[in-house]
Amino acid sequence: MVGAGPGDPELMTLKGLELIKKADVIIYDHLAGEELLKHAREGAELIYVGKRAGKHSYTQEETNRLLIEKAGEGIVVVRLKGGDPFVFGRGGEEAAALMQAGIAFDIVPGVTSAIAVPAAANIPVTDRRYASSFAVVTGQEDPKKADKMDYGALGADTVVVLMGVGNLENIIIQMLRRRSKNTPVAIIEHGTTERQRVITCTLGNVVEKATKSKVKPPAVIVIGEVVNLREALSGV
Amino acid sequence: MVGAGPGDPELMTLKGLELIKKADVIIYDHLAGEELLKHAREGAELIYVGKRAGKHSYTQEETNRLLIEKAGEGIVVVRLKGGDPFVFGRGGEEAAALMQAGIAFDIVPGVTSAIAVPAAANIPVTDRRYASSFAVVTGQEDPKKADKMDYGALGADTVVVLMGVGNLENIIIQMLRRRSKNTPVAIIEHGTTERQRVITCTLGNVVEKATKSKVKPPAVIVIGEVVNLREALSGV
Repeated sequence: MVGAGPGDPELMTLKGLELIKKADVIIYDHLAGEELLKHAREGAELIYVGKRAGKHSYTQEETNRLLIEKAGEGIVVVRLKGGDPFVFGRGGEEAAALMQAGIAFDIVPGVTSAIAVPAAANIPVTDRRYASSFAVVTGQEDPKKADKMDYGALGADTVVVLMGVGNLENIIIQMLRRRSKNTPVAIIEHGTTERQRVITCTLGNVVEKATKSKVKPPAVIVIGEVVNLREALSGV
Repeated sequence: MVGAGPGDPELMTLKGLELIKKADVIIYDHLAGEELLKHAREGAELIYVGKRAGKHSYTQEETNRLLIEKAGEGIVVVRLKGGDPFVFGRGGEEAAALMQAGIAFDIVPGVTSAIAVPAAANIPVTDRRYASSFAVVTGQEDPKKADKMDYGALGADTVVVLMGVGNLENIIIQMLRRRSKNTPVAIIEHGTTERQRVITCTLGNVVEKATKSKVKPPAVIVIGEVVNLREALSGV
């Protein structure tokens, strides 16, 4: 199980690249950079399990079964996932399925978008003067989870929201219960890639700004004083 | 500014390794794997700015000055930092100093210990059934920071404490105000390296366990239901 990093293929790990080169089968989804697949050996089987418009998408159960079936043949299977496999990647579920099937696996962490995307916008998620902690949260929670997320209860100095565009208004309403409307916010679209766009605003006007600027996924939202460091780090 | 990853040199990024190979000067500290320095080109200047017993340590101001002085000579300087440069690495301060001095720099994120060390112990920081969020916090806050950390206020499903061994009792007392004493806890010493040791316990007995087991830094502490997934993912 290999993390592909946040978008820029150069942010793949050495270990991850070695495994891609060696793999007999690579099972990947749309967040995992296509660029990386160029390193696959000739004849390697590449299987796409991400979503695509108008076509059948693999369910999680089908992906688990595919992993077990392929790995069961005694060959090297790489499950390539965007970012880090254990940060909202369902890597834990897939690993548990493999474990249960008696199949040996290794977890190769990746650079997570939650940190690298703000960094690419010159925003450090921590800073000893302003932020001793950061929280990373998904904007798309599983409806079956017992304890529902309270975005207002995230007492960390910096909050990074992944996959939050679709649920933005709800998230911001909850956050405004505990944080000032002047809290700085940055929305980063297509982070670490050539199409990167950064919008800075505040908790008070982020919903309006996001609508006006037609923000679309994938985007990373950063909330907290660290957003103001962008100026000192990039002059914008 | 290059993140060296969590300990295992194979978890360095491709981009980071390229820069190490190309660098005229590498300024590093003790958390950045010595293994990686073997890739430096012959004749590259390697400058250690970390702490060591009985010897002069560089202050942050001295490190900033050194970076500016070296970079000012128009050569490639790599500032190699353990983990990710923006996760408790003072990367933001160093970047701001460079910016102010008019020196161009680039941030190369790294795999952070906050995620990779739990992963190496088969603990995913998120899981759609148990954890839609995780918080990462330092156990050693700057005494000059205005708003002091309240470890109890970290409402994330999973909490990862870095550099928390020295301040463990205080952190746990605060966390027990909002979390049950049965909340699962893992302490991971020397994560991702051959010396890795994992101790599992609960919020109620972690202080006692850590003392008995003579836990020493560097250690990563993980708090939350996801700790229980370790069993399903590794059989221990």
